[in-house]
Amino acid sequence: MTERLVTSLTNDTVKGIRALHMRKEREVTGQFLAEGLKFIGEALDQGRAPRLLMVGMEARPHPLLDRAKAATLEAGGEIVTVTHPILEKISRRENPQTVLGVFDQAYTRLDQLDPASASCWIALEQVRDPGNLGTIIRTADAAGCGGVILIGDCVDPFSVEAVRATMGSVFAVAIVRCTVEAFLAWRTAWPGSVVGTRLDATVSYREAAYAGPTLILMGNEQAGLTDGLAAACDVNVKIPMRGRADSLNLAIATGIMAYAVTDAA
Amino acid sequence: MTERLVTSLTNDTVKGIRALHMRKEREVTGQFLAEGLKFIGEALDQGRAPRLLMVGMEARPHPLLDRAKAATLEAGGEIVTVTHPILEKISRRENPQTVLGVFDQAYTRLDQLDPASASCWIALEQVRDPGNLGTIIRTADAAGCGGVILIGDCVDPFSVEAVRATMGSVFAVAIVRCTVEAFLAWRTAWPGSVVGTRLDATVSYREAAYAGPTLILMGNEQAGLTDGLAAACDVNVKIPMRGRADSLNLAIATGIMAYAVTDAA
Repeated sequence: MTERLVTSLTNDTVKGIRALHMRKEREVTGQFLAEGLKFIGEALDQGRAPRLLMVGMEARPHPLLDRAKAATLEAGGEIVTVTHPILEKISRRENPQTVLGVFDQAYTRLDQLDPASASCWIALEQVRDPGNLGTIIRTADAAGCGGVILIGDCVDPFSVEAVRATMGSVFAVAIVRCTVEAFLAWRTAWPGSVVGTRLDATVSYREAAYAGPTLILMGNEQAGLTDGLAAACDVNVKIPMRGRADSLNLAIATGIMAYAVTDAA
Repeated sequence: MTERLVTSLTNDTVKGIRALHMRKEREVTGQFLAEGLKFIGEALDQGRAPRLLMVGMEARPHPLLDRAKAATLEAGGEIVTVTHPILEKISRRENPQTVLGVFDQAYTRLDQLDPASASCWIALEQVRDPGNLGTIIRTADAAGCGGVILIGDCVDPFSVEAVRATMGSVFAVAIVRCTVEAFLAWRTAWPGSVVGTRLDATVSYREAAYAGPTLILMGNEQAGLTDGLAAACDVNVKIPMRGRADSLNLAIATGIMAYAVTDAA
């Protein structure tokens, strides 16, 4: 059965999708939830069809929705039509998107990355906030970065909150997760500059010369970049603090760094 | 009575502070809630004492806390000691800060701004997201901007969520709110460049020449800068979109613009 109507909140499919709010369920199933036609369209443009396409009964006709349905069926997925209360329950929002997709998570491995394919790459150490991570993925996409590498114990890029903040860029940017050890080993072969960002660095981010491709390394929200990773950088730079604030939000700092690199490339 | 212990969730003082989560209550009282010793310290450094200082019974001794208590009493405010459940109720968080301050909101008027006192200023039209606004205030502070001007129907900079995102910069940066008409009238006397940011602009933000002081004008999250305000700018610029993303998060775009201006100043 590839197309069906579900009206019960206790339906197993509905329960399964609701469970994708939990990291454990996402780890076990390897799936994640993307809400809204914009996200589905971005996925289709990247050749990614939903495993399951959920469409609210009130969803209006749209060429992109037709395309999503065809792609879902062609890829062997299923289409489920649901009521508004089910969409609310799944989204945990009062004004849910009327189209949702369940997709397979897609991580890229370090050895699959081609450093020369982009002028800028971003690596994050132990990033903690899903909104920050999603916004960084969106920003990396906008700046034309090749990918986002998650080092160590990071927040899940496929959480509902992180995915929302990507605005669809979760499908456009390579996402890697790796241990500190694996990153350090892989980093030795990096052909350009590896640039750490630290508040205690003495060189301004505008003064340093970066060889392309440039790999930007950002620490976590509280502690910044650890000494071990900072030591593995070719240069550590700071973004000047010109007022009373002692730091920038992590996503803001990453955006400023990424555009500084890609503007100069 | 300037120092007292409160243990009841239904105490009037507690109810009054909890009500500061609501915009209406903030408008009526002209007050707002700032959580955490970092925020209190920033306020004191700016000569702003709390109207009311709330201290959890489990708060540990700290020189800054002593300073906050002294400043509160000297300014005629009161100190209230409370239980952990009260802190949780007020913060709506499981791990609340143990020190809170209730402060008077402080808006600056347009005619009180001295454009020459900073190289960069930020104006926001109809900004909608409190987290974005708070992050922009923090970023404006970090970049050394003179202030943030809220044009038209903007989200409240003194909401609990916005204040949290400022990380204390709510006390460090001049905040102005005004109508579109008042802004347009005041803008005619601006001594430097007024720079609008639009996705449909043809000039890159790196190519345009800005005369200082530079006033950056950002539109809202969904619609961008309106035609009326864009027309009032000396130049409209775009931040290049180099990947698949069609826009940046508003706070990210503002941070990139602010640092481009203050780096060059």
